[in-house]
Amino acid sequence: MSRIAYVNGRYVAHHAAMVSIEDRGYQFGDGVYEVVPIYRSTFIDADLHLARLARSLRELEIPAPMGDAALRSVLMMVARRNRVRDGIVYLQITRGVARRDHAFPARIIPSMVVTARPGPPMPTDIDGWAGGAITVPDIRWGRCDIKSVNLLPNVLAKQAARRAGVYEAILIGPADQVMEGSSTNVWIVDHDGVLRTRRLDHHILPGCTRAALAGLLAENTISFREDGFDLATLKRAREVFLTSATSLVKPITTIDGQPIGNGAVGTITAQLFGLFAAHARAQAEQEAA
Amino acid sequence: MSRIAYVNGRYVAHHAAMVSIEDRGYQFGDGVYEVVPIYRSTFIDADLHLARLARSLRELEIPAPMGDAALRSVLMMVARRNRVRDGIVYLQITRGVARRDHAFPARIIPSMVVTARPGPPMPTDIDGWAGGAITVPDIRWGRCDIKSVNLLPNVLAKQAARRAGVYEAILIGPADQVMEGSSTNVWIVDHDGVLRTRRLDHHILPGCTRAALAGLLAENTISFREDGFDLATLKRAREVFLTSATSLVKPITTIDGQPIGNGAVGTITAQLFGLFAAHARAQAEQEAA
Repeated sequence: MSRIAYVNGRYVAHHAAMVSIEDRGYQFGDGVYEVVPIYRSTFIDADLHLARLARSLRELEIPAPMGDAALRSVLMMVARRNRVRDGIVYLQITRGVARRDHAFPARIIPSMVVTARPGPPMPTDIDGWAGGAITVPDIRWGRCDIKSVNLLPNVLAKQAARRAGVYEAILIGPADQVMEGSSTNVWIVDHDGVLRTRRLDHHILPGCTRAALAGLLAENTISFREDGFDLATLKRAREVFLTSATSLVKPITTIDGQPIGNGAVGTITAQLFGLFAAHARAQAEQEAA
Repeated sequence: MSRIAYVNGRYVAHHAAMVSIEDRGYQFGDGVYEVVPIYRSTFIDADLHLARLARSLRELEIPAPMGDAALRSVLMMVARRNRVRDGIVYLQITRGVARRDHAFPARIIPSMVVTARPGPPMPTDIDGWAGGAITVPDIRWGRCDIKSVNLLPNVLAKQAARRAGVYEAILIGPADQVMEGSSTNVWIVDHDGVLRTRRLDHHILPGCTRAALAGLLAENTISFREDGFDLATLKRAREVFLTSATSLVKPITTIDGQPIGNGAVGTITAQLFGLFAAHARAQAEQEAA
């Protein structure tokens, strides 16, 4: 089956899906995106993703190309046409096509592209799901809360991780503070057993999986602290894990080549992975009902 | 006459010039660009632009799509086909098309796009060429020396200038240091009469017009200091001007609504504009000879 993409109102063969060379996404990275996970043909945490998309567009003053209901049906159509049962749908909206000029065009007609692709099913073996990370300096801009396609620093960080043979690069900011991963949020169970993740501000992405997990923690009366921690605290942690739409809850058992805790997946990480997997299953079952 | 663009080996109608939705330029801003000014059908400071392009590509480990001689002939062909006598040629090279993944693809086939367009001829009235600027915080990433298409912060700064009804937004970094404009380098004649522009490092773009002007200053035994200055020093300056491929030497006579010096174009700015204009004319005449 050949892949199908949605491009500005049309469903086209993926390999022939094109945008203008003067799309501002291409010339300036002037656009935003979302990756929505699909599990058993159901979008997981779609409300969170669409709310974040709306916020990213608002912050950049890019008009939404359509309402939420229409957007959902395009996402669903692309997922179905590509027969994605487990995988992701990718959505990108830019400030459209205009004669090149840094400032916004007088009239903005946003461009919208949607693709979907299958991915591995939800992992069942938590130990096999574990990975390693390196740490690199955070050289990104000052508005990482906007999910923009200005991703070059993230690309360079992820490439450094790839070269080191590990899953993720964790970005270290001023005063050795742990910011987030190149495409994930970072959580720890610190050496005192406290579950922590960095607070939200302009310097990290407000992860949807992070938000979903925070909701699950509240429901299960598991306390956590939303505050910063530094590199030394990260390396001394009992457990480290990452969250993102495709990383789910991802145990990190080595950082910069050194084991975290005893080098095995921690019990709290395993518990939270289970909570999140159950959360995804519940959404899929509700949808199927 | 309809415009023609070069896209990955083909000359195509500008309005139909397209790139893949999975070009990494579109999804990650994973690419670089150059804008080369054309004056009397001659590329101005082409060697400087091509050297900077090569450096940007090297820093990002994007292979050059062709050698310098071939690149020059593509640029010339696009300029000629569009009959641009005075204007610019725009060149963008990205890490090519690949299944979306932050890390580099195993095999990189860079994409290359070239466009040209006419612009106004070299200004002759220096007073009419003057403009204003505002100042905004510099929120860009830590590798602004690479001329990448991750330009969203520049877009937002330029839009702020547009809204304020002025030409440029000057970016103010840590400790109130003046970095550069959103698409220009900043020079001052300070309150003591010293010509100054910020030193080069990872935080500003090494401007080609800046480099050309520095060469002209040396030839004419006009001294200048390559060091930083802060916002207060900028506002107290006798003269302020910007340099870039399209700004040339651009007098700035107001900043944040306040006049610089007596509010008129300064004598040193006018002199340096004249030197740069003569430099461009000399290149055009040499080419024609």
